[in-house]
Amino acid sequence: MDRRELHLNINILNAGFHAAAWRTPSSDPAAFVNVRHYVEVAKIAERGTFDAVFLADTPSFADRPDYRPYQALEPTIVLATIAAATDRIGLIGTASSTYNDPYNLARRFATLDLASGGRTGWNVVTTADPGASRNFGFDNVTAHRDRYERAAEFCHVVKALWDSWQDDALVGDKATGQFVDVARVHPIQHAGHHFKVRGPLNVPRSPQGQPVLIQAGGSEDGRNLAALHAEAIFSVAQTEADGLEFARNIRTRAERFGRTGPIVFLPGLATTIGSTEAEVKQREQALWDLLPTEYSIGRIAGLLQIDPDRLELDRPLPDNVSIPEHGMQTFAAATLRVAQQDRLTLRQLLRKLGGGTGHRLLTGTPEQIADDIERWFLCGAADGFNLMPDVLPEGLETFVDHVVPILRRKGIFRHRYTGHTLRDHFGLVRPGDSLAAQRRTIASAA
Amino acid sequence: MDRRELHLNINILNAGFHAAAWRTPSSDPAAFVNVRHYVEVAKIAERGTFDAVFLADTPSFADRPDYRPYQALEPTIVLATIAAATDRIGLIGTASSTYNDPYNLARRFATLDLASGGRTGWNVVTTADPGASRNFGFDNVTAHRDRYERAAEFCHVVKALWDSWQDDALVGDKATGQFVDVARVHPIQHAGHHFKVRGPLNVPRSPQGQPVLIQAGGSEDGRNLAALHAEAIFSVAQTEADGLEFARNIRTRAERFGRTGPIVFLPGLATTIGSTEAEVKQREQALWDLLPTEYSIGRIAGLLQIDPDRLELDRPLPDNVSIPEHGMQTFAAATLRVAQQDRLTLRQLLRKLGGGTGHRLLTGTPEQIADDIERWFLCGAADGFNLMPDVLPEGLETFVDHVVPILRRKGIFRHRYTGHTLRDHFGLVRPGDSLAAQRRTIASAA
Repeated sequence: MDRRELHLNINILNAGFHAAAWRTPSSDPAAFVNVRHYVEVAKIAERGTFDAVFLADTPSFADRPDYRPYQALEPTIVLATIAAATDRIGLIGTASSTYNDPYNLARRFATLDLASGGRTGWNVVTTADPGASRNFGFDNVTAHRDRYERAAEFCHVVKALWDSWQDDALVGDKATGQFVDVARVHPIQHAGHHFKVRGPLNVPRSPQGQPVLIQAGGSEDGRNLAALHAEAIFSVAQTEADGLEFARNIRTRAERFGRTGPIVFLPGLATTIGSTEAEVKQREQALWDLLPTEYSIGRIAGLLQIDPDRLELDRPLPDNVSIPEHGMQTFAAATLRVAQQDRLTLRQLLRKLGGGTGHRLLTGTPEQIADDIERWFLCGAADGFNLMPDVLPEGLETFVDHVVPILRRKGIFRHRYTGHTLRDHFGLVRPGDSLAAQRRTIASAA
Repeated sequence: MDRRELHLNINILNAGFHAAAWRTPSSDPAAFVNVRHYVEVAKIAERGTFDAVFLADTPSFADRPDYRPYQALEPTIVLATIAAATDRIGLIGTASSTYNDPYNLARRFATLDLASGGRTGWNVVTTADPGASRNFGFDNVTAHRDRYERAAEFCHVVKALWDSWQDDALVGDKATGQFVDVARVHPIQHAGHHFKVRGPLNVPRSPQGQPVLIQAGGSEDGRNLAALHAEAIFSVAQTEADGLEFARNIRTRAERFGRTGPIVFLPGLATTIGSTEAEVKQREQALWDLLPTEYSIGRIAGLLQIDPDRLELDRPLPDNVSIPEHGMQTFAAATLRVAQQDRLTLRQLLRKLGGGTGHRLLTGTPEQIADDIERWFLCGAADGFNLMPDVLPEGLETFVDHVVPILRRKGIFRHRYTGHTLRDHFGLVRPGDSLAAQRRTIASAA
């Protein structure tokens, strides 16, 4: 077996992870709707031999856009633009299983996978945002369980469509005039609770067989979805123990479902990096000073679905707050745990989260950052990280120029790309041509 | 008023218009899933100062893929790739109003419009393909009237979403911390027969205000949809009289709907060009020899929804064939008219259509082609053409190198781009910020 290797994604959260990133001197507020910003970030990440860029998404007007940028641009269009400007880096886009059709989605990601030479991943999410539901004909958010049942069937259909062509179905023989061998392209004939899809897909398989399926979300239903379908997982983990527990939990479930292949665990990691500890503190303070308290309080209140008037900056969260049933359960749980563990005041909580809602914020010098990453990686709490620098692109530039060289010296991160597809980077196998395999099985049994 | 100017789109039909194009020596059969082929064609068209590239689409496995390539790749991903490799040429993609959600579609095209600096157009179609309906949960094709009712409401919602931001809503004031002025972004609150969409869109307006809305399809319902919403129209016209009648008909309907702006009429034009008449004949014959008769007969039979066994190569079409109620009415009507006008045998009909299904095929030397285009343009039968060279890219290269210079000398086609957006190229106005206009009206009435 090959040596285990660290994986790094860059999560392009517009101006950066920090909610006030767009107000720093080097930021351009219009960058949030400028694909050139995304391309620039992707090129820096590719220079740092990152596995992939990642785009989150919600199909609605953001919560509090008066205060900060959000993912406005539709991810697959942005990723197609990045694909045209890069050669190796993977391209992971989020798309909702709640508000899409499996045929259209399978086709769009399959197209992106061909356009990028096999560098694409789909991050499947369910959408709990009330604004989103009202953009798709619903008055209320779909219940958590229903969303995940639909998501599981959605993934099943999408993977079946991606597998509806055998590798050798495109013949293109000018002499005989046969273009596609239709005997090697198969309808999927799916008829389930949520979807009825005949297929086949109209797009052939890509160099990596099919896009990588990625999942994020740590609720009970989310974990089962991940265990059933995910090849890589974006998780929320504040401590190594969290990370280890989560990976073990998912692996156990996956085995129960009969899965054997690898699963790549990538906790979110927000960073603020300075060349000295004094510089780190200064940078943290400067960002904090730019962050309106009203915004931060509103964001926490929204996440926990409580009245912001119940929150006070210099007191801990109220005692009877619990994880909302129909919201972002993973982030709410992580935020509550951080708050309750050290009985932090709201102000301390907000600073600890860096204006975020649950992901771990790591601050330090390049050496401190690299040591922490190595520790998590070696103990198995993470196979890598979904990196969220405080400010983009500058926070990523610092990481690539000062942290990546240390990780390479430690012998845990690649010096150059050895493969061409996202599956190559993640160490995932190319899915076999399952239809051909079935035929071989039938033939040998006969 | 500015001088009237010819408009030219290149319709990138994979290997070319001719069904046997992929079998010619210069073609690469794998090009149909290679974005580089599309980029190459787009760059040649941009060198020829074309208005736009155009991609047709049907979300299903093609009819008879065993014989020829089809639009496999999802158009907006291909157009995003072309956008990254070009500066000026417009980008028009087809997407079905029958099998999409208006919010997702509005957002994807708005994103492409921002990514391309305002060069995008959406060709709205309804999907009659039975294979497509079975990919989206339906056993049968939706009735013609229902499809068009949904399409009209779909267009209305998409345009309202594109107009949900005022031009100045993105503030991005680092000093005050105001990012978006939410008072200048408005929910659309649509509740109709087919859709309920609250909005607003989460994407700001683009440099051209909003993507250009294009329509194709000449049935009664299709004409009303075009008259209501289309700013440019792809039509089927075999004769100048057809073209004139169609344009007059649509303009009358549009006036009845209270529309005043320009509408650009672009009939389809397939071409086979040679430097001498002998060379043209030779090229036609070579393509004909590569086209399997079985395929051509099957295609006509499918279009007219009759049993292929009723067709004989050296006899005219059976007498009692009529336009099918639930199919591609425009192409069926055009094909029938061509066949019946001169009582062509099936063989003569197939040759006249160049393996196609109703678009006009023009063969000749560059001078003959340019003269024909000029005649149609000057008499008002066309504002320009949706060009379909027999083989791509070579047929387009010939057109750009040998026909375009003549059109320029005739003074009817641009020598260089004067604008940057697709609206600039088509001579369409940038849609006003209608929300701001409403506010001004209310203020002045008060």
